[in-house]
Amino acid sequence: MSTEAYTPTPRTKLRLRPDRGHYDRELVHAIIDEALIAHVGAVVNGEPRVLPTAIVRIGEDVYIHGSQANGVLGALKDGAPATITVTLIDSIVAGRSGFGFSLDYRSVMIFSHGEAVTDPEEKRGLVQAFVNDLMPGHTVRPPKPKELAATLFLRFPIEEVSAKVRDVGVLDVEEDYGLDLWAGKIPVSLAFGAPEDCPRLAEGIATPDYAQNYARPPMKRST
Amino acid sequence: MSTEAYTPTPRTKLRLRPDRGHYDRELVHAIIDEALIAHVGAVVNGEPRVLPTAIVRIGEDVYIHGSQANGVLGALKDGAPATITVTLIDSIVAGRSGFGFSLDYRSVMIFSHGEAVTDPEEKRGLVQAFVNDLMPGHTVRPPKPKELAATLFLRFPIEEVSAKVRDVGVLDVEEDYGLDLWAGKIPVSLAFGAPEDCPRLAEGIATPDYAQNYARPPMKRST
Repeated sequence: MSTEAYTPTPRTKLRLRPDRGHYDRELVHAIIDEALIAHVGAVVNGEPRVLPTAIVRIGEDVYIHGSQANGVLGALKDGAPATITVTLIDSIVAGRSGFGFSLDYRSVMIFSHGEAVTDPEEKRGLVQAFVNDLMPGHTVRPPKPKELAATLFLRFPIEEVSAKVRDVGVLDVEEDYGLDLWAGKIPVSLAFGAPEDCPRLAEGIATPDYAQNYARPPMKRST
Repeated sequence: MSTEAYTPTPRTKLRLRPDRGHYDRELVHAIIDEALIAHVGAVVNGEPRVLPTAIVRIGEDVYIHGSQANGVLGALKDGAPATITVTLIDSIVAGRSGFGFSLDYRSVMIFSHGEAVTDPEEKRGLVQAFVNDLMPGHTVRPPKPKELAATLFLRFPIEEVSAKVRDVGVLDVEEDYGLDLWAGKIPVSLAFGAPEDCPRLAEGIATPDYAQNYARPPMKRST
């Protein structure tokens, strides 16, 4: 894998806030890997659609999956262009004016085209990759051929991509800093609670450490 | 405001999992109100775009705002159809098979058309509405006319809308329940940390209670 930065394109170059645009490969990867879901945009019958869905990155590709009957996935399988957005909120930023109100965030936008994964062995590996991504250490029974057949996996190369980061906290207009008003930020993060066992757990099975100490992003992952 | 349910349409009727589709007005409102951001889909020059952005609901309309120069907002102002998606993740669900892996979530999808808010007084009210939504109790200085002019506010009526809810936790195929594997769910929520004062706070200003006890959704809001 190349460690060079991605090359900006007319679509990924930020026009309005160029200082917030980033093309660093590690940063892009880290944002995707931390996210639980992406919002995937597609044009279906001329109309915009947005699909919230789990996403996994393997090297320089991201993957989504779902039912073969899903309309958005079907359009993407047939080559419709995709815009894949991943957004992490880091802070609520309270400024001294309404226009100083903001969020600190890290986001990624990928412009890409999907390709269906058809090889059963590769699909089998992707099932495991989604499990590993959402819950490293968790063991599942092997997929059945009919389950694999019913599931559409789509691969999207990460080529045309940008990250956008706002991490400055309060950014008021200069004359506002002296105002007699509070300003600051509230850190936002995902909290993972104590695991709840499935009520139909087989006898003698304990809640595993990987569930009791769940954290995100996963500590170990293939790059 | 009517308290009746929204009417399903061909676009908002769930085909694949009809049991997960909901049209209850209070449920739709509650999901929108809890979310910090929406992902807004639009078609710009024939391509899909997805804009992550803050959203506010007032009655039966939602509002987004941004720079007059933003491309997606510009297309929506000119009448391009919008798909507005709000997604809240409630649990990571670890089943006994890869296909039993899932997320519990609550989401809303609105199909609508935007309309620019042009009245300066209404825009002024919306500035306050965004502040109230993100941080109830916080005081800001009044907006300046040139700030109002530079900001595009778009209103979208909530008419064609569905909520989608998965809240069942582990849902394995029947023969998997007896397997010698752990299954369960990990609750996911947004955590709000201790507020961090702006480093340039005027002297003598204390961190207010509304920041120290930040919670979401806001306790009080106009319906």
